[in-house]
Amino acid sequence: MSAEFEVQGIPITEIAEEFGTPLYLYDGDELASRVHGLKEHMHPRLEFFFSLKSNPNIGVCSVLHGAGARVECSSMAELLTVRRAGVAPENIIFLGPGKSAHEIEACLDEGIYTIICESFGELAVIDELARLRGVTAPVALRINPSFAVKGSGLTMGGKPRQFGIDETQVFDNADLAQRHPNVRLMGVQVYMGTRILSEEAIAENTERIFELANRVSDVLEFPLDMVDIGGGLGVAYFEGERDLDLPLLAARVNPIIAEFADAHPETRLVMELGRYLTATSGTYVVRVAYVKESMGEKFAVADGGTNHHMAAVGIGSFVKRNFPMRVLNRIEEPANESWHVTGPLCTPNDTLGKKIALPPVRPGDLVGVLRSGAYGPTASPVLFLSHGYPAEVLVLNGRAHLVRERDTTEDLLRHQHLPETAALATPE
Amino acid sequence: MSAEFEVQGIPITEIAEEFGTPLYLYDGDELASRVHGLKEHMHPRLEFFFSLKSNPNIGVCSVLHGAGARVECSSMAELLTVRRAGVAPENIIFLGPGKSAHEIEACLDEGIYTIICESFGELAVIDELARLRGVTAPVALRINPSFAVKGSGLTMGGKPRQFGIDETQVFDNADLAQRHPNVRLMGVQVYMGTRILSEEAIAENTERIFELANRVSDVLEFPLDMVDIGGGLGVAYFEGERDLDLPLLAARVNPIIAEFADAHPETRLVMELGRYLTATSGTYVVRVAYVKESMGEKFAVADGGTNHHMAAVGIGSFVKRNFPMRVLNRIEEPANESWHVTGPLCTPNDTLGKKIALPPVRPGDLVGVLRSGAYGPTASPVLFLSHGYPAEVLVLNGRAHLVRERDTTEDLLRHQHLPETAALATPE
Repeated sequence: MSAEFEVQGIPITEIAEEFGTPLYLYDGDELASRVHGLKEHMHPRLEFFFSLKSNPNIGVCSVLHGAGARVECSSMAELLTVRRAGVAPENIIFLGPGKSAHEIEACLDEGIYTIICESFGELAVIDELARLRGVTAPVALRINPSFAVKGSGLTMGGKPRQFGIDETQVFDNADLAQRHPNVRLMGVQVYMGTRILSEEAIAENTERIFELANRVSDVLEFPLDMVDIGGGLGVAYFEGERDLDLPLLAARVNPIIAEFADAHPETRLVMELGRYLTATSGTYVVRVAYVKESMGEKFAVADGGTNHHMAAVGIGSFVKRNFPMRVLNRIEEPANESWHVTGPLCTPNDTLGKKIALPPVRPGDLVGVLRSGAYGPTASPVLFLSHGYPAEVLVLNGRAHLVRERDTTEDLLRHQHLPETAALATPE
Repeated sequence: MSAEFEVQGIPITEIAEEFGTPLYLYDGDELASRVHGLKEHMHPRLEFFFSLKSNPNIGVCSVLHGAGARVECSSMAELLTVRRAGVAPENIIFLGPGKSAHEIEACLDEGIYTIICESFGELAVIDELARLRGVTAPVALRINPSFAVKGSGLTMGGKPRQFGIDETQVFDNADLAQRHPNVRLMGVQVYMGTRILSEEAIAENTERIFELANRVSDVLEFPLDMVDIGGGLGVAYFEGERDLDLPLLAARVNPIIAEFADAHPETRLVMELGRYLTATSGTYVVRVAYVKESMGEKFAVADGGTNHHMAAVGIGSFVKRNFPMRVLNRIEEPANESWHVTGPLCTPNDTLGKKIALPPVRPGDLVGVLRSGAYGPTASPVLFLSHGYPAEVLVLNGRAHLVRERDTTEDLLRHQHLPETAALATPE
């Protein structure tokens, strides 16, 4: 009746005791299994690129890479992270609508596989920086397609966007390669949406992206070294959602990939995955500081909240939906009460869970938000009210490793400076 | 036609050149003027406490304190900040629904003016920690009133909340002081809402809070050393909003304060202010990296976005409303085009301004989001995509001071650790 949550046999109370709370806990076996599942089911020519934006922790990246994932980066720090995690340059792609000259230079110097270019302006910058370095830049064009495919949480195609180059504009500039002699156009990327839970939508995306890539390659006259079909594979968070079915996904998508792969024996086929690889492995763990009742409703006030887990407020939805949550130190107790779980911030929006079914909650209890390995602390306002970044712990082969120390108070203040006191009025 | 934005005579291009972009820029004169305006118009017995949550920069705190503000903190780092900024303990109050034992101990050790207690559970913890230290803890009760007052952006009263103790529960526990011998009950705090732009609502709040404080003091039999009427004074961000009118506010509120002050000659009267003190002084400054068109709409992609300015996405509103924005290096040019201003993140939500009127935008332009001194970088996911915290610059007496260095790539990676390599599978 009071068994507790464990990761690879280590009880949560032990982990919380050793590393403190709040913390993010990652299960390395689950991380690896996500890559293994894809490799097992999907067409062997498909390569899986981990999008660091979903979780840039170097430990998480290492495990996924060890299981066979390549990487997709979008900033200097992410590029440095993957290099330190041992990812070879030929398995790194770099993406993002606002790349700085500094970032593009680093991509060229590291010799990564390709820069995914998002605008004509960026292409000119890449060309010029490559010229100055005396190198040729491998570039894939990100295309904003004229079509949209339904079934994603946030549709990207068929709308005005800061991402990629409109399909029509690409075809209006068939001499793009000739105009950029220090760029080698070598691929096409399209990103259709995020949080997709429909196998059918992914198949339809894939088919249409291949068709578009063929046309671009024909009209612009460059060979397809790579086609990146984006990603956006989701996980079920909320009531009524169901996880993707890998065998079903494979049955729908593999024939499409097979056809294209056979026609393009030299082309690398890339799928980007962030949330799909990391979400299920992670648990956000907070300790309850106080319990209280207000106007007939029960509140558990915890030591961490939306400052570490902004997604819990609601992912693009106006009405808050709850992530799955448990009292981790008593997971088998019946969840027969209704609780608000809130954090330490001074705003009513700091609500991790609203009217969720939990057993009676007591101060000292550990509450976990499950499926929280993606878009966790880095996608949250970790400095709000100056509580700082939580600890991150990765369990590998039955051992817990601290892969990110929590911020100390000094960490939060180190970069701040008082202006010279002479400039200030006399206080009080 | 192309004059540029200046702060105390320093042109924005000079500041951007010296400190780089993206950056937050604060005008020290404007900060000080906000405190001076309140002191000039409002009843002399009212004291103004700066809520650090709105902007915890130590330089900003120093200027406000120098102009006469006291402070309200909600975390260990905020407490340390105000002490380093030279604020005396008797002018510090500490608030928050999830105070840790460590934070309460620091409040007791620093001898701050009062701890604002938010639950019976917390009161018991304060009592016990004070007993262990052999001190008496000065405590004000935060009360969740049974009434609500219309006119705020986010109403706090009359609803089930994690904040404060329900009014009815307070009156049901008239022996609260006796049950906590190491606590000295000395005040009442009520916080009615945020972003209030109605002078009438503030007056009504004040009146009802004084009335409630009197009843609490009578029934629970403790003297009112302090009444904290909360705050929540707003500033106009969006079309159709107007700023509070200080003379009008004074005309409505001062008589209410005068009556209470005369009846309570020894009571400190506290108003908390965050946004009102800091918002108008701050400008978020980004540099445009690329301009592009997509399906007939214009996009300026800048080097910073909602990773530093989450509020720009929309403050609690389902439909995005734009903050005031300008092309800072050409502020007099007619704003005769419609632009999306987006940041470097890989999500369409990374939009600072949607279809805003601007002059033709070019790469290299500096775009400013005005009125951004409150709930800026610390209320934003600064680590998203690992771009890190922006620089913060404070202009004081005609000189620009770097009061917060931007994060370096190493800053972002310093706390991360690879698990022992032996634990990892062999990569690739």
